[in-house]
Amino acid sequence: LSLFSNTYLMHLRTLIVALLLWGYLSTCSAPPPAAAEVPDGPPNIIIIFADDQGYGDVGVYGSTRIHTPNLDRMAMEGLKLTNFYAFPSCSPSRAALLTGAYPPRVGIPDVIGPEGPDWTSNKQYGINAVETTLPEMLKRAGYATGMIGKWHLGHFPETMPLRHGFDQFFGLPYSNDMHPGNNPLWPDLPLLDGEDTVALNPDQRELTSRYTQRAIEFLEEHQDTSFFLYLAHSMPHVPLFTSQDFQDRSGYGTYTDVIEEIDASVGQIFATLDQLGLDDNTIVLYTSDNGPWLTYGNHAGSAGPFREGKGTTYEGGMRVPFLARWPAGIPAGGVNHAPASLTDVLPTMAALTGAPLPKRAIDGRDLSLLLRENQAPASSPFYYYRSGNLDAVRLERWKLHIPHNFRYVDQVANDGNRGSYAYRYSELELYDLYGDPGEVYNVAEEFPEKVAELRALAESFHADMQREKREPFRPAR
Amino acid sequence: LSLFSNTYLMHLRTLIVALLLWGYLSTCSAPPPAAAEVPDGPPNIIIIFADDQGYGDVGVYGSTRIHTPNLDRMAMEGLKLTNFYAFPSCSPSRAALLTGAYPPRVGIPDVIGPEGPDWTSNKQYGINAVETTLPEMLKRAGYATGMIGKWHLGHFPETMPLRHGFDQFFGLPYSNDMHPGNNPLWPDLPLLDGEDTVALNPDQRELTSRYTQRAIEFLEEHQDTSFFLYLAHSMPHVPLFTSQDFQDRSGYGTYTDVIEEIDASVGQIFATLDQLGLDDNTIVLYTSDNGPWLTYGNHAGSAGPFREGKGTTYEGGMRVPFLARWPAGIPAGGVNHAPASLTDVLPTMAALTGAPLPKRAIDGRDLSLLLRENQAPASSPFYYYRSGNLDAVRLERWKLHIPHNFRYVDQVANDGNRGSYAYRYSELELYDLYGDPGEVYNVAEEFPEKVAELRALAESFHADMQREKREPFRPAR
Repeated sequence: LSLFSNTYLMHLRTLIVALLLWGYLSTCSAPPPAAAEVPDGPPNIIIIFADDQGYGDVGVYGSTRIHTPNLDRMAMEGLKLTNFYAFPSCSPSRAALLTGAYPPRVGIPDVIGPEGPDWTSNKQYGINAVETTLPEMLKRAGYATGMIGKWHLGHFPETMPLRHGFDQFFGLPYSNDMHPGNNPLWPDLPLLDGEDTVALNPDQRELTSRYTQRAIEFLEEHQDTSFFLYLAHSMPHVPLFTSQDFQDRSGYGTYTDVIEEIDASVGQIFATLDQLGLDDNTIVLYTSDNGPWLTYGNHAGSAGPFREGKGTTYEGGMRVPFLARWPAGIPAGGVNHAPASLTDVLPTMAALTGAPLPKRAIDGRDLSLLLRENQAPASSPFYYYRSGNLDAVRLERWKLHIPHNFRYVDQVANDGNRGSYAYRYSELELYDLYGDPGEVYNVAEEFPEKVAELRALAESFHADMQREKREPFRPAR
Repeated sequence: LSLFSNTYLMHLRTLIVALLLWGYLSTCSAPPPAAAEVPDGPPNIIIIFADDQGYGDVGVYGSTRIHTPNLDRMAMEGLKLTNFYAFPSCSPSRAALLTGAYPPRVGIPDVIGPEGPDWTSNKQYGINAVETTLPEMLKRAGYATGMIGKWHLGHFPETMPLRHGFDQFFGLPYSNDMHPGNNPLWPDLPLLDGEDTVALNPDQRELTSRYTQRAIEFLEEHQDTSFFLYLAHSMPHVPLFTSQDFQDRSGYGTYTDVIEEIDASVGQIFATLDQLGLDDNTIVLYTSDNGPWLTYGNHAGSAGPFREGKGTTYEGGMRVPFLARWPAGIPAGGVNHAPASLTDVLPTMAALTGAPLPKRAIDGRDLSLLLRENQAPASSPFYYYRSGNLDAVRLERWKLHIPHNFRYVDQVANDGNRGSYAYRYSELELYDLYGDPGEVYNVAEEFPEKVAELRALAESFHADMQREKREPFRPAR
């Protein structure tokens, strides 16, 4: 026992002190190393997709009025991209996200609208049956797949989510403004569970919270299998609604209330992942389908430093926030300025999960090294498609707008008419997006060889696209 | 010994495993609680002041090309303000910071320029000898005070830093563009140590690194006493320079290189605080003296979502980044949208240190609760002074521009001339900064009573100011 109380206990005490010190220093040190355990199996995937949220409408993207602690935390603990592109409107962006292709390639050139006596009376088009979507790709790799929210890739029966790889669907077939209250020629807006209508013209104040509740249930149900959850919020697309808890809460208008409810929803998703022990090996992506509405009022978002907003191929129309968090695979606190787009999501998820790529041209690139090591990909052009037309092309710092047609051009920004567009015949416009992210200084005359290079790239790519693209799907009836 | 190898060692093993587990869990948990120890004595204060850095030129303020991991870390671990104001140009902002007053009140209405055969030939004005500055206030409370960088509050001998509360000074008397290379009528630009000239027209590539080295030495020398360090970088004011390590490093132009060198300097300051054990009880503030130059090219900054830049009273001219970090006193990860300004720094530091306020009207407010508890102050008007004139007033969401004179108005933003201003006679302009932070939609006609309210506020305040303000100081010679 003397041995105990002397030499041995001294060593023991030293050991304990050392361990305590180590624990303390670990606590106080910089962000902890990413992966604590080797995660078990392929990562789970959650894509949270906002509708019409602008680049400037997130705390860490410089919002001057919106508080987004959960999105900010995603940035702190994951990767933030500053040069990430969607397309200028809803359906094309969703097509790009779910197919890895430019929208015209898969026959979704433009927004799909409602028509006829009821919502199934689609006379426009929808996603092709032959398409292999992100959920189909992941389903083949053994993933459970669920979609909650806004679909907007066609509302023929053949084009709905359950026919394109999702095991579950709860949400709207298209945008929340497409209802008779907005246009008496439009049919009642259905809220769907699977393929059953559970409500017509549902109370939109509950959309975000109902989506979130369903998302949590999906996570709880699938905690023991690999899963892919696509949570495509209807908000902040107009008309804007929040639940009672968030109504007028921010003091900064309805748009701010709406984003703060979505941010809180993100927080609930993370809390659920944490409770279920799934946090470490779940990839969560957050982005938006296009830039914001800019009209003055409570429903206006912010394109941050960029020119214009939704519907245009100026940066404000297509540059959106992109956050990726995955404790097991993405180092904390990364920022990257490399151009990337919605088309890159599918090939990147294929690489990270080992799922085989669809057998069709994929425009996107595997950006798994960007996610895992903050390593910018080799430079490659990005093509700004709008309504099936190629409006502009970007290579590294240079962006060329190409006149192919009449198109929207901002009127004088100072006359209070920014929300109402004027048509004019556009000119070639070359912008240096490093020195001039706001697209103010057209330098086409100063750099004719750069104009020629980009124009040749664009014409060659678009000619190929015209030849190779799939026709929009319309079933024979 | 059998006792050793069985029961006792089992307990020991359990203990070690528990401690390892605890250490491990500590490592993996969320950011550690703020204060580990109760800090000893009043907080140290470091104010890092950038020159002409725009709102959009920090990662967490939405930069699309600049990587600022150290400033981002300040935001993560401290408080970020999104509605913080400087004044439109150098000298007035420095006056507001060091006196807590609107610039005209203390006789510094506008930028002070160089003249005459050498730098001491000031024919303009400087800070009054009777003024009690922030360093004087803190010196009386027992602080060691040091200033490194750009002064720009007058270059009569009576107006230099050592005569206004700083124990040490190393830097330039005014802006780095004020040298004969820019204007042959200007005298050689001196680099001063105390009141001794150590170089004329110094190599500006070394300014940021020399300032940083001096700052580190100041911290090392004063680690055993309370200190106030004012590090007023000359950059990113044009002409832009970086040290060799940062030249062309970012790939995004010189302006980006320059900000990234300043960010690295911030990192060195924090590393030094950490090494010296001063990190916990040192308040570090980071902000800028006005918005960015917007001319196209390598030296252009970004005003983020705001209209216009340096020299104007549109938000882009005066809204700047503001970060505050103080582990012992500021909760991590706070964001606040309440309006605040450089005038608030002095009264806030008085409250946090217990130093008595100067005996003179202080325009700023004590924002210590904003820092310590992220608690927005009661609303109060903010007055946009430019060149001694009151150009605009803000109360909560509303901002009124008041026509008192011809003033700079942006030409058409789309014609490539954003850098060259046009004069026009301005009108009353009312903007809703919550719904329209970019000041696009003049709603003066829609809200005549708000116009009247704000105009009355402004006229009353400005009339008082005209009566009470100190005349610019010019020594009798």
